[in-house]
Amino acid sequence: MAEPTYTLEGWHVLHDFRRVNWPLWQEASQEEREAALEALLSLMAEWEGVEREGRGSYGVYQVITQKADLLFLNLREGLDDLLSLEERLNKSPFARFLLPAYGFYSVVELGSQTGPLDPESPYVKPRLTPRVPRSGYVCFYPMNKRRQGQDNWYLLPAQDRARLMKAHGETGRKYQGKVLQVISGAQGLDDWEWGVDLFSEDPVQFKKIVYEMRFDEVSARYGEFGPFYVGKRLDEGALRAFLLP
Amino acid sequence: MAEPTYTLEGWHVLHDFRRVNWPLWQEASQEEREAALEALLSLMAEWEGVEREGRGSYGVYQVITQKADLLFLNLREGLDDLLSLEERLNKSPFARFLLPAYGFYSVVELGSQTGPLDPESPYVKPRLTPRVPRSGYVCFYPMNKRRQGQDNWYLLPAQDRARLMKAHGETGRKYQGKVLQVISGAQGLDDWEWGVDLFSEDPVQFKKIVYEMRFDEVSARYGEFGPFYVGKRLDEGALRAFLLP
Amino acid sequence: MAEPTYTLEGWHVLHDFRRVNWPLWQEASQEEREAALEALLSLMAEWEGVEREGRGSYGVYQVITQKADLLFLNLREGLDDLLSLEERLNKSPFARFLLPAYGFYSVVELGSQTGPLDPESPYVKPRLTPRVPRSGYVCFYPMNKRRQGQDNWYLLPAQDRARLMKAHGETGRKYQGKVLQVISGAQGLDDWEWGVDLFSEDPVQFKKIVYEMRFDEVSARYGEFGPFYVGKRLDEGALRAFLLP
Amino acid sequence: MAEPTYTLEGWHVLHDFRRVNWPLWQEASQEEREAALEALLSLMAEWEGVEREGRGSYGVYQVITQKADLLFLNLREGLDDLLSLEERLNKSPFARFLLPAYGFYSVVELGSQTGPLDPESPYVKPRLTPRVPRSGYVCFYPMNKRRQGQDNWYLLPAQDRARLMKAHGETGRKYQGKVLQVISGAQGLDDWEWGVDLFSEDPVQFKKIVYEMRFDEVSARYGEFGPFYVGKRLDEGALRAFLLP
Amino acid sequence: MAEPTYTLEGWHVLHDFRRVNWPLWQEASQEEREAALEALLSLMAEWEGVEREGRGSYGVYQVITQKADLLFLNLREGLDDLLSLEERLNKSPFARFLLPAYGFYSVVELGSQTGPLDPESPYVKPRLTPRVPRSGYVCFYPMNKRRQGQDNWYLLPAQDRARLMKAHGETGRKYQGKVLQVISGAQGLDDWEWGVDLFSEDPVQFKKIVYEMRFDEVSARYGEFGPFYVGKRLDEGALRAFLLP
Repeated sequence: MAEPTYTLEGWHVLHDFRRVNWPLWQEASQEEREAALEALLSLMAEWEGVEREGRGSYGVYQVITQKADLLFLNLREGLDDLLSLEERLNKSPFARFLLPAYGFYSVVELGSQTGPLDPESPYVKPRLTPRVPRSGYVCFYPMNKRRQGQDNWYLLPAQDRARLMKAHGETGRKYQGKVLQVISGAQGLDDWEWGVDLFSEDPVQFKKIVYEMRFDEVSARYGEFGPFYVGKRLDEGALRAFLLP
Repeated sequence: MAEPTYTLEGWHVLHDFRRVNWPLWQEASQEEREAALEALLSLMAEWEGVEREGRGSYGVYQVITQKADLLFLNLREGLDDLLSLEERLNKSPFARFLLPAYGFYSVVELGSQTGPLDPESPYVKPRLTPRVPRSGYVCFYPMNKRRQGQDNWYLLPAQDRARLMKAHGETGRKYQGKVLQVISGAQGLDDWEWGVDLFSEDPVQFKKIVYEMRFDEVSARYGEFGPFYVGKRLDEGALRAFLLP
Repeated sequence: MAEPTYTLEGWHVLHDFRRVNWPLWQEASQEEREAALEALLSLMAEWEGVEREGRGSYGVYQVITQKADLLFLNLREGLDDLLSLEERLNKSPFARFLLPAYGFYSVVELGSQTGPLDPESPYVKPRLTPRVPRSGYVCFYPMNKRRQGQDNWYLLPAQDRARLMKAHGETGRKYQGKVLQVISGAQGLDDWEWGVDLFSEDPVQFKKIVYEMRFDEVSARYGEFGPFYVGKRLDEGALRAFLLP
Repeated sequence: MAEPTYTLEGWHVLHDFRRVNWPLWQEASQEEREAALEALLSLMAEWEGVEREGRGSYGVYQVITQKADLLFLNLREGLDDLLSLEERLNKSPFARFLLPAYGFYSVVELGSQTGPLDPESPYVKPRLTPRVPRSGYVCFYPMNKRRQGQDNWYLLPAQDRARLMKAHGETGRKYQGKVLQVISGAQGLDDWEWGVDLFSEDPVQFKKIVYEMRFDEVSARYGEFGPFYVGKRLDEGALRAFLLP
Repeated sequence: MAEPTYTLEGWHVLHDFRRVNWPLWQEASQEEREAALEALLSLMAEWEGVEREGRGSYGVYQVITQKADLLFLNLREGLDDLLSLEERLNKSPFARFLLPAYGFYSVVELGSQTGPLDPESPYVKPRLTPRVPRSGYVCFYPMNKRRQGQDNWYLLPAQDRARLMKAHGETGRKYQGKVLQVISGAQGLDDWEWGVDLFSEDPVQFKKIVYEMRFDEVSARYGEFGPFYVGKRLDEGALRAFLLP
């Protein structure tokens, strides 16, 4: 049995991707659309309030391609908070115009291959309760570590895993200032082992960092990647413009 | 031919995951919604009665992400009981507002790699007829044992399987008091070989135990995992609050 | 080129799994429901007649989990008979309340690894035209023989295949009187190479036989299994009770 | 780089599988149904005309299982012809009663592992512009040649591929007079590399030939098979009987 | 860690495949259909204007088989342009008659295995901002480079990758004048690593080039291919004819 990595958990995360039922939206009266939009903006204002109080963070995104139209990204202190906000979205008048797309539940984590971390250290604490950037783009994808024939991550000795993750971290550091990474763990919580959020002011940086990292041995040999979702952050004005004609 | 494990069977289990048709639910009159909810609560009261009489156990859960909104978990003495309760749910007025999500049929089992078990022993009997905890969270996932190239569980000698399962059990025991496990077998009954239910007062424990166990050789080399579903138990009041505005 | 197995073909088989559109069923008037049910019962009476005349066999089953609600299982002398009965079901008033689930077309077969069989022998003939038990439960699943790297069934010498199938048959014989097996071939007919039907008065026997057989080398190394469906046979009265409130 | 096979291309092929929306069909008035059917029969008459003029061939089939109800099979001189007939079907009144099922676009090909073929030779020409048999049954499936670890078709020397295909051809020839094969290539055109159509007066022959061929090394080691569809040819009268009550 | 390839990025690309809701389109009044079509033609006229100003390129295609009916292909200077045009299509009156099919977001790239490229060179610049041919056919497919056991592209030394890509390029050059290739990268942007567009006046060339290339070691050993879509370019007149009866 290989030694597992030391891991600390932070905020709980819900990625809630939805498609808009555009034909139904068009058929609605201007009045219905306005009411639905106001209900959505009022949820967004609450999320904003939670963020201001330091009890979470959030972002609403316009997503490219038909996979989804909107991403509601929320980080909170516990699962109950996420259950409650998902429920309120589903019961809001705007939900009449939404179709399911994809969802992912995970918990922000900080792992160490070498020894336990101090949850109160100034290096650790902000990483466990990250703030979503107020502008720019997001790239989300879930992933697994491979367990296949000779390429079995979970059978590697701890020092090999530490060495591989260190090299991977160095690739990441080249993008400091250009790409912010948030890693959340989903083992026991969702269908993939991790969720990765990349944030940047330039979506081409998503392509560059993911491409470069794929040559890291840890990705080349052990990474299995799920679907990728790319979106642009919408503030209240942009959301209004996205939805109204 | 490898010797199969000694196994005893207990209660039959139905995991019945459903999505709520929220747009239709919103369009319904307050009266229709109340009637549908009362019908659901009345089914729940019957399940409660069955549990009180020792002929089964149950739990209703609010599930996170769009995979499902509700889980109806029921354990009973036989398949006929499960067929009958699935039928009654489908014919209840609440079913008008439900959409299919996922289901799983299995039978609680207790396996031994070393020799036959006594079904009447005080260690064995309660494990074959487990009670679902009255509060907290559930994590459900189906799984297979791998049969792939060199990693073929069913071709291992019995003593190797016994040794691997024993080490796995030791990881589980570290979580005693934090996570309750119920294992049910589904070979010949559903698309995966086993169903696993974890129960805990803290959903982060699901992440911790599943992560740690993945380093056990039996999981790292032989475990294949299906979708994961996480939910929070709802009592009558919480279910009412979940569904009414 | 390995020598293929000697095979004889018997009755053609259609597994027709459907979901019931329960919300639509509820909205229908009592009159519409009665008319739809009578139409279904009248088809069933015809199938009964065909069985009485020795030109086929059939069973209608209530299926557990959301995968399907009903299985219409029919064995006939040829494909035309199956096309015709599928067509009549689709055109009956009951079809308005059905949703697609899964279907499988295959032909009952009896294989021999060692030499040609006599189709008129009293051992062979009834096995090619089997009668579906009048009561109890069914377990249906499709399967392939693996062709992957070192584990390639179709490249094995005939005597190895014969030896493996013989051992497998011995496991099956342990369940004589408890589980009846019907094997049908679907190469060139459907997406899996074989369909397997198990019939038993006790669904736990499905779990036991499939579990034990998985340790047979032929399953452990060469078996690839599709979805499993379990149901309970419904006679006219039970079908009426299943559908009417 | 292995030498590719010499290949000649003939007619373009569209397999257009559809399900019938039976509930909607039942709800339509007798008048609407008649009009829809006449529109379909009139398309069929045009396809018949094209075949008479030697510019293509066609068949309409009743398909077994819920995968599809109808197959519209058309061979034409170019893609534009297929685009146009798919468009006309979609715009016909009958299309209101159709649901999507599966489609496949390919081009009839004749390959040679040993050297270039003469497109005008009496052996080659009719094989590139084949006529669909006027009666009997069809079996369609798409397939790939495997590229996996040691089993990589495209890395084999040309003489090995020639030898394997020759042996495969010999198995096929055993079925001469019983099964007609049409091979079409779909690389660059659809999701599988080839489409295979088998035609026979007896559907059990599909089972026999596909089973026997699976023991050919080229199939056992290199064949990857998609879904299988089996149907019975309908002439005008049979199509009318299939659709009207 | 292998050295990644040198890569330059150009225009952002959206492949937007849709199905037409033909039954709904038929039920619409002639007036509604005309209004919807005019709205679509007016979007097309804008895309034409963008192309004339050199800020992008586009094509509208009629797609064969039920996978999709229309492809809206757009290249633009940035993601914001693509988000905006996808939004405008979804909000246009024509969107009422569209069903989702498939979408892909990528960025045109030019890679070099040997050293950095000069983005202003006359060889490089037009390749980063390619014009879609005004006529003929398109073939689109996404692809990955394999990372599986011994066949792991990202673990190859840079000189091996360079050699394999050079040989592949030579196969491509044989089709110069017959097939135009546009490669776009999608790592970090969509579910496959690359998108490939082939343009030709003859769709049989798609079959020939893809077939021949599959024997290149880089494809045979390392290529994993997604779905293939083939369509014919529609100008305003052809689009009108496609949609109106």
